[in-house]
Amino acid sequence: MSKRNLFYAQSGGVTPVINASAAGVIRTARAHPERIGKVLAGQNGILGALQEQLIDTSRESRRAIDGLMSTPGGAFGSCRYKLKSLDENRHEYERLIDVFRAHNIGYFLYNGGGDSADTCLKVSQISAQMGYPIQAIHVPKTIDNDLPLTDNCPGFGSVAKYVAISTREAALDIESMCATSTKVFILEVMGRHAGWIAGASALAASERGDAPHIILLPEIAFDQERFLSKVSQCVDRHGYCVVVASEGTSTADGRLLSDQGERDVFGHAQLGGLAPLLAGMVKEQLGYKHHWAVADYLQRAARHIASQTDVDQAFALGEAAVTLAIDGANAVMPTIERLSSRPYRWRIGTAPLHRVANREKKMPRRFITKDGFGITAAGKAYFEPLIAGEAYPDYQKGMPRYTRLKKVLVPKRCDPWSE
Amino acid sequence: MSKRNLFYAQSGGVTPVINASAAGVIRTARAHPERIGKVLAGQNGILGALQEQLIDTSRESRRAIDGLMSTPGGAFGSCRYKLKSLDENRHEYERLIDVFRAHNIGYFLYNGGGDSADTCLKVSQISAQMGYPIQAIHVPKTIDNDLPLTDNCPGFGSVAKYVAISTREAALDIESMCATSTKVFILEVMGRHAGWIAGASALAASERGDAPHIILLPEIAFDQERFLSKVSQCVDRHGYCVVVASEGTSTADGRLLSDQGERDVFGHAQLGGLAPLLAGMVKEQLGYKHHWAVADYLQRAARHIASQTDVDQAFALGEAAVTLAIDGANAVMPTIERLSSRPYRWRIGTAPLHRVANREKKMPRRFITKDGFGITAAGKAYFEPLIAGEAYPDYQKGMPRYTRLKKVLVPKRCDPWSE
Repeated sequence: MSKRNLFYAQSGGVTPVINASAAGVIRTARAHPERIGKVLAGQNGILGALQEQLIDTSRESRRAIDGLMSTPGGAFGSCRYKLKSLDENRHEYERLIDVFRAHNIGYFLYNGGGDSADTCLKVSQISAQMGYPIQAIHVPKTIDNDLPLTDNCPGFGSVAKYVAISTREAALDIESMCATSTKVFILEVMGRHAGWIAGASALAASERGDAPHIILLPEIAFDQERFLSKVSQCVDRHGYCVVVASEGTSTADGRLLSDQGERDVFGHAQLGGLAPLLAGMVKEQLGYKHHWAVADYLQRAARHIASQTDVDQAFALGEAAVTLAIDGANAVMPTIERLSSRPYRWRIGTAPLHRVANREKKMPRRFITKDGFGITAAGKAYFEPLIAGEAYPDYQKGMPRYTRLKKVLVPKRCDPWSE
Repeated sequence: MSKRNLFYAQSGGVTPVINASAAGVIRTARAHPERIGKVLAGQNGILGALQEQLIDTSRESRRAIDGLMSTPGGAFGSCRYKLKSLDENRHEYERLIDVFRAHNIGYFLYNGGGDSADTCLKVSQISAQMGYPIQAIHVPKTIDNDLPLTDNCPGFGSVAKYVAISTREAALDIESMCATSTKVFILEVMGRHAGWIAGASALAASERGDAPHIILLPEIAFDQERFLSKVSQCVDRHGYCVVVASEGTSTADGRLLSDQGERDVFGHAQLGGLAPLLAGMVKEQLGYKHHWAVADYLQRAARHIASQTDVDQAFALGEAAVTLAIDGANAVMPTIERLSSRPYRWRIGTAPLHRVANREKKMPRRFITKDGFGITAAGKAYFEPLIAGEAYPDYQKGMPRYTRLKKVLVPKRCDPWSE
């Protein structure tokens, strides 16, 4: 079979370990020079293909590629850009084929979440529908952990570890001060549609009564009265209360609590996020001194405390995607299959992309305690192995050494792209 | 000389390394059984003395005390409670003497910041003014780094490290996404009166153009027009802009930007903190997509990424306080003296408490760039050694093992305390 180049791109919100998947792709491709020519990485995801901004990864040293194993962010640039369907925007697909053909690209590896799986699926259909031979493989990645058919998604384990550790640490702080100071602490974490990240904070507790005392999940409708009553109960019992709230926390009518229009529940104009909103409720209704934190990008960039399991799986999925490409697969995604939780054993599986794209996996109800504010033993057993191991980066002068690539573009061969 | 017990207490906001000072105190006291009886720790700071809630640290194993070296929060509980002057509240001082006498306490070691130094100074005057022999030594601690007469304050180096690393990590995230998504990221950090913590984020930059692009400090009056113009300039130049804002950022009239009364600069009611306020400005005036994070307690509890230098100094200061006590000192604070920056060499010094109490050390102007938005080479040379080294805690099942003490109280010998 003839030797063709491989296009790799990063898509959607980045993670602490998406670059480990890139390393898996590039190192595995380099090990198969008989089948794969160059790995050309899209600058800023699929836009790199449309705009013919292709990074020649063969110009990066082995050391630089290894450095990706411990570098957060998206080393090649990512994007939020969703291809329309073939019927709606045939022009875009013709452009992709022009660029692929000009650079002899036969493999399309797209590293992203649910929306990206959809883009990848559409590219996989080019072969059949437009007659250009290409194999599209999706490399899963999302801190939201909401892709179906895989035990978990690379990126999630590290964010889960960060959130669980931060919750345990902040709880020790509040516990020390609660006699005369802060009684309620609220940590807002990501997860707009599914509560996986907030749920993982449950690992912070090692004994009954430990924080987090309340977890707010998108899966459970928010009820202000029940929430405040639980906060009050916690403060009475433990002297303090730690709340971890998913940004996707919503009311029974399905509206985000943090997005109740111009005015919040108290009639205040709403500038901030969910954490200050909840803090306002606690202050006005219960009068407790409170503090709140919004982790935002810190949580999904915190490579300094990444999970070793997560790094290993991210690399393995990049590796598997190339192996699948070489084996002739198309429109598939390598997955993680859990064989057992204690001890954690897993292997690589595959899932057809049409069963992955645009489907969100919410947290199962059996992972959530009956009152909706906590995580069950079954949930903890699921989360626990995903945060195992500390994959520390190297340090220099007290700061982590993160790799920056040269990102040399290959010369353009097509006309400029116009939308 | 007769053998007397030592009272140790933690005061004010806790830090990632205050317990390392506690370990320094307890281990050194244990090494001098000929001079020091038990170390009795106040439960919740000075309140533990007033309420006669004294933790018998001799009931804690050597292993538990060693565990304090890597445990954040205040292991004995802290408090925000300031003693009035002898004239204003003689009753409190008489109570302290009752408790000290009942438990044969001859040494008072108080581990805190500026307010606590004042309390410690007042206790040191008991000997002279009320005839009860006691030596009061202050063990410095504050993430705010604002105590005078010491090179730095234990707790600060670790928070500085956390903030610098978080800034570098989040910047990589934004850089990857800025072509199609977030262009401005704002991280709010602590430091109500001095900009040390925000300033340390400058260590995130290794090359010209690296984040943070704008640092907002309490030392420099906030000017909305200049700020927005700089943000816009950064986005034009780099494609994105990272802002690190000290919570103490104030306008020229000295008012906190985050506390401009019921309404913010846009006439909105103000629920949240500084970061959402700045984000609102950026959105309304410049229209950039933005994200913001508020680290809050996460930064000062983040023992998982503590600075080894900071842990070493926190321990050394606890050790030095006991040595000073044994040597007969009173009303003093051991300090860090910097001998050189590159390589970093330091030794323990001492400062009289009357020159420490209630004085705040702001960041010198020469550490701040001319435009007020950055840190000079001199500033970076000051910060750099303080974040050196990674003092990782032990982990079990993916989570740091933090120590919880037994905290056995000694039997009470005095009447209950009534204020």
